[in-house]
Amino acid sequence: MGPIYEKTATSPVNIAVIKYWGKRDSVLILPTNSSLSVTLSQENLQSKTTIRASPDFKKDRLWLNGVEEADVTKNKRLQNCLRETRRLRKEYEKKLCEEVGAENTIPLSEYNVHICSENNFPTAAGLASSASGFACLVYTLAQLYELPVSDTELSKIARQGSGSACRSLFGGFVAWEMGSQDDGSDSQAIQVAPKDHWPELEALICVVSDAKKGTSSTEGMQNTVATSPLIQHRIKHVVPERMKSMTEAILKRDFRKFAEITMRDSNQFHAVCLDTFPPIFYLNDVSRAIIRVITEYNSSNESGELKAAYTFDAGPNAVIYAPRENIPEIINIIAKYFPGDIDNGNEYFTDPYHLFSGNQVGKQPLPRGFNEQIIPVFAPGSVKQILHTKVGNGPQTLTGKADSLLDEQGWPKRMT
Amino acid sequence: MGPIYEKTATSPVNIAVIKYWGKRDSVLILPTNSSLSVTLSQENLQSKTTIRASPDFKKDRLWLNGVEEADVTKNKRLQNCLRETRRLRKEYEKKLCEEVGAENTIPLSEYNVHICSENNFPTAAGLASSASGFACLVYTLAQLYELPVSDTELSKIARQGSGSACRSLFGGFVAWEMGSQDDGSDSQAIQVAPKDHWPELEALICVVSDAKKGTSSTEGMQNTVATSPLIQHRIKHVVPERMKSMTEAILKRDFRKFAEITMRDSNQFHAVCLDTFPPIFYLNDVSRAIIRVITEYNSSNESGELKAAYTFDAGPNAVIYAPRENIPEIINIIAKYFPGDIDNGNEYFTDPYHLFSGNQVGKQPLPRGFNEQIIPVFAPGSVKQILHTKVGNGPQTLTGKADSLLDEQGWPKRMT
Repeated sequence: MGPIYEKTATSPVNIAVIKYWGKRDSVLILPTNSSLSVTLSQENLQSKTTIRASPDFKKDRLWLNGVEEADVTKNKRLQNCLRETRRLRKEYEKKLCEEVGAENTIPLSEYNVHICSENNFPTAAGLASSASGFACLVYTLAQLYELPVSDTELSKIARQGSGSACRSLFGGFVAWEMGSQDDGSDSQAIQVAPKDHWPELEALICVVSDAKKGTSSTEGMQNTVATSPLIQHRIKHVVPERMKSMTEAILKRDFRKFAEITMRDSNQFHAVCLDTFPPIFYLNDVSRAIIRVITEYNSSNESGELKAAYTFDAGPNAVIYAPRENIPEIINIIAKYFPGDIDNGNEYFTDPYHLFSGNQVGKQPLPRGFNEQIIPVFAPGSVKQILHTKVGNGPQTLTGKADSLLDEQGWPKRMT
Repeated sequence: MGPIYEKTATSPVNIAVIKYWGKRDSVLILPTNSSLSVTLSQENLQSKTTIRASPDFKKDRLWLNGVEEADVTKNKRLQNCLRETRRLRKEYEKKLCEEVGAENTIPLSEYNVHICSENNFPTAAGLASSASGFACLVYTLAQLYELPVSDTELSKIARQGSGSACRSLFGGFVAWEMGSQDDGSDSQAIQVAPKDHWPELEALICVVSDAKKGTSSTEGMQNTVATSPLIQHRIKHVVPERMKSMTEAILKRDFRKFAEITMRDSNQFHAVCLDTFPPIFYLNDVSRAIIRVITEYNSSNESGELKAAYTFDAGPNAVIYAPRENIPEIINIIAKYFPGDIDNGNEYFTDPYHLFSGNQVGKQPLPRGFNEQIIPVFAPGSVKQILHTKVGNGPQTLTGKADSLLDEQGWPKRMT
């Protein structure tokens, strides 16, 4: 058995504070506005991918969470990423030939690949895994092919797998510049600030159960661009100014400014969904109640400071950003109004940082001045899970043999 | 006992199809955009007011639904209407003096008044009664004072009691022209088409129970104008064009156009509420489910026609406009997904037109092609009441002695 060409890497989830909604080109996935996100720690949420290239493989194959995709050639977004990385590998191989000779150049671009990818978070969480998944695919391919290109270059490829995936190629605070070129050559992600720039900033993810599946974001954003009169104003006048202000807020670690723009932009994203015809709803009564609770928390505290910021993507789950010092108070408030399902006690509060033990959650009194009456206490399980997380790093390469998701022969170790 | 100067009149409720949201002057109540409404039949929903003027009355007094208002001088909106109508009466008395002499001119403008007003609909319905109430107040005062002015003139006075009240001075289809003058002299209601112009058009009111009281519209619209970037686009670019199209749709009895603009404008009104900071929510999960049901009803029918249009004001209640032929089908669909509370059987479906008996409601099959799975069946009582109504007339004067809400001495017949 000859040498093995294989790489394993992990990639993070990112949650936008200025939302991406609307494409100007649905093939190249070029957005109608720039967006900005925070990369979350991979301790709770991460995609992991192993890719092996071999002349022995009969075809490209993909296993996602232990299930093989029947026909990868039908997966356009996957094909985009394979085509683009192989093209770059091909160019690189040309260069290698000239430098070290053909005999020392492995034609990886011509080999089929086995791709095995897993998420460490339950799909139940309903958190978009396509961003971390496609970022991980492209990053791992780039490692395997030893591509001499920057992460920003890779972000343009990941973007063609899933728009927001381009932002998962960096840790910390990341902007997706919409660009102006028709070929997408300037629609790319850049890092605004690294993970350690603002260590006090942390996040809570409130997983909200929802009866019915909402509109897919791809379909939804097309309808919004086609039918909402208001989104044009958002695109032309609102977002450009917010991108500037949000970048400043992050660079200055100005939480008040960060929080206000984050909440306003989440609201406006859901507003243009409602202005779509027929309207698109992602927030439900629980989501709305969480907004009321955070609004009361911000307005009732004596300091007059904003203490937390909510944001919602294309679903009912809330992500709450806050300075670390406020996190225990917020967890307690959420747990009071949205108690965990009794049959789900241990799952309810998940905290790799052991901020405090799960059984204290929701037992403390409300903060002084907080109006207990603003909303009723919801039925147990209305919020299924509270995840405590932080700002995280970008993709990481794993080198241990045990880290590989493929066995000696290049087949998945685990199948379902 | 001398002659009695007293008048009794009734006024209708109106439901906007192009929404009023935002004031440019909160004292004169001048709106930031024009609006357009349909006046509903007074058979289900009406305000009734009796006003008597007498030199014997020590002060102005007001009884609303059997409860006296402690200090009417503190009620600015009431005072606006009294001041303006008395001013016009004063002018008229001057004219009378010149024509028939002071001895034949009754100085009603100097007499105090007893005002007794009632609504025939339960406040439980949560339907804005201020529009019908202030329209009725101003119309009855104009009758009492025999003011030689048009209803459009009166609409400018009613507007200063409650903005949308100006539209309740007419039956049928009514536009409130925002005007451009700072003194409000051109911010007035005009009739677009009379009640009988479009006899096929009928309406259903779905009364949705809601846990908490939403933001007051006065406070809400001020916050929206102050904080929503999107409402400016709505005011400047969207509404002017919709006013034109909606007027055409009504004049041509084009239900498809009427329905689409109605639904789009309701959605956009709630979108700018959501773009407000902090956001304002009036729609709840039941409201959203009604929107889904009507959307499915419109998209699933073979004819390809729009068969119904929803609209929501500053609350969770739905008003559904539809051609008469579709009304039984719609009642049946709503009753299937939102069954009445068992303890409330008779109240649930209210139909002065006896379209069909309450016990058939919800028993028919769904229309062919309707996807039963779009939403779950809601808990009984989620919709408290379905009211079947029609396009109605403007204010009416009642002359029968029994119609008066005041007794011989000018005191309320009924108190609570």
